[in-house]
Amino acid sequence: MPLNIPIAENILSANDRLAEENRTRIEAAGLFSINMMASPGAGKTSLIENTLPRLADKVRVAVVDGDIATSLDADRAAAAGAQASIQINTGGQCHLDAVMLHGALDQLDLKQFDLLIVENVGNLVCPADFRLGTHKSVLIASIPEGDDKPYKYPGMYRGVDALVINKIDLLPYIPFKMDFFQRGVEALNPGVITFPLSCRTGEGLDAWIDWLVQNVKR
Amino acid sequence: MPLNIPIAENILSANDRLAEENRTRIEAAGLFSINMMASPGAGKTSLIENTLPRLADKVRVAVVDGDIATSLDADRAAAAGAQASIQINTGGQCHLDAVMLHGALDQLDLKQFDLLIVENVGNLVCPADFRLGTHKSVLIASIPEGDDKPYKYPGMYRGVDALVINKIDLLPYIPFKMDFFQRGVEALNPGVITFPLSCRTGEGLDAWIDWLVQNVKR
Repeated sequence: MPLNIPIAENILSANDRLAEENRTRIEAAGLFSINMMASPGAGKTSLIENTLPRLADKVRVAVVDGDIATSLDADRAAAAGAQASIQINTGGQCHLDAVMLHGALDQLDLKQFDLLIVENVGNLVCPADFRLGTHKSVLIASIPEGDDKPYKYPGMYRGVDALVINKIDLLPYIPFKMDFFQRGVEALNPGVITFPLSCRTGEGLDAWIDWLVQNVKR
Repeated sequence: MPLNIPIAENILSANDRLAEENRTRIEAAGLFSINMMASPGAGKTSLIENTLPRLADKVRVAVVDGDIATSLDADRAAAAGAQASIQINTGGQCHLDAVMLHGALDQLDLKQFDLLIVENVGNLVCPADFRLGTHKSVLIASIPEGDDKPYKYPGMYRGVDALVINKIDLLPYIPFKMDFFQRGVEALNPGVITFPLSCRTGEGLDAWIDWLVQNVKR
């Protein structure tokens, strides 16, 4: 039986007021906005690359990409057809916060867009603690990460409005118990809308796109 | 061309003195110690599960497991044959620090062990900033995370003493350019010792075990 050493939880909330201000600006311009969070390599950028061409001619998209280093992701978003793509380099910081998004919004003429996609730093812990002011939080899980992640990262799974399960094309090659995974999700976040899909094969992407478009039109 | 918004880097060093104290205690007891870091789901716990049976009768191992929630990992380490396994629940915090390891060392009779394995919280950012006092830092990368990770998480790749590349059994099913990955590693951490392996098939594990045993005997 392992010993248990509890450490007091850090509660971070100073960020919230600026998140409200971001939300007010986004709403005033009539955008729908999402905050995409995930582990490194779960497929946030791949999902954006696969989403943008399917929205072309229907929805004008601005992408704000948070990364510790490089502008690889913003470059990929621009190449995939984002009408605007802004890179936030966090300089080592492990999450985006409302201050950083505020700075990015300053660079955009928000009325030119219908959808704002914020791609957070790849991290299954810290981004969950920092509200940005977006309408919906979307978690991208992926099959190779393993089926125990809801149990081990409850803060992230509890707080999101939608859950993408990416890389379902790898299910034949990986021991992943979908029942166990979904029981964990359901316990933390009952009824959360879920999109199993594969950015590689395209399977399941239609339902995700429909959800985005419905929210943009609302 | 994406815009670039730099944010000042946070430098955390208050932790270092206690890390020195941890190191002194570990050395006094004659242990070799490693700090295992990785993204969520890269395979830290799987690697521990596959390592312990191969060290049985040769090396006495204590495992300290850092997690945000649950004792799943410490339970798995105990089941795999760790002579001692201690769970640190960080209460939401995204990394282990020297204070937490200090508390865990208090629970161990260090002279009973040859090897101390610390499994950090699954996170490719924050753990790199907090020295614990262990001898070597080991990063577990994995094929499904993608070949761009050294470029996007340079802080982690730059600071480690050994690099495990897990899940090589998935190479046939995933577009992963090993050359591109290794060029990134080499630029940040020239000559770092690398162990491509698969915890699932066992391929490549021998070299990893040899490295551990050599370091324990030193």
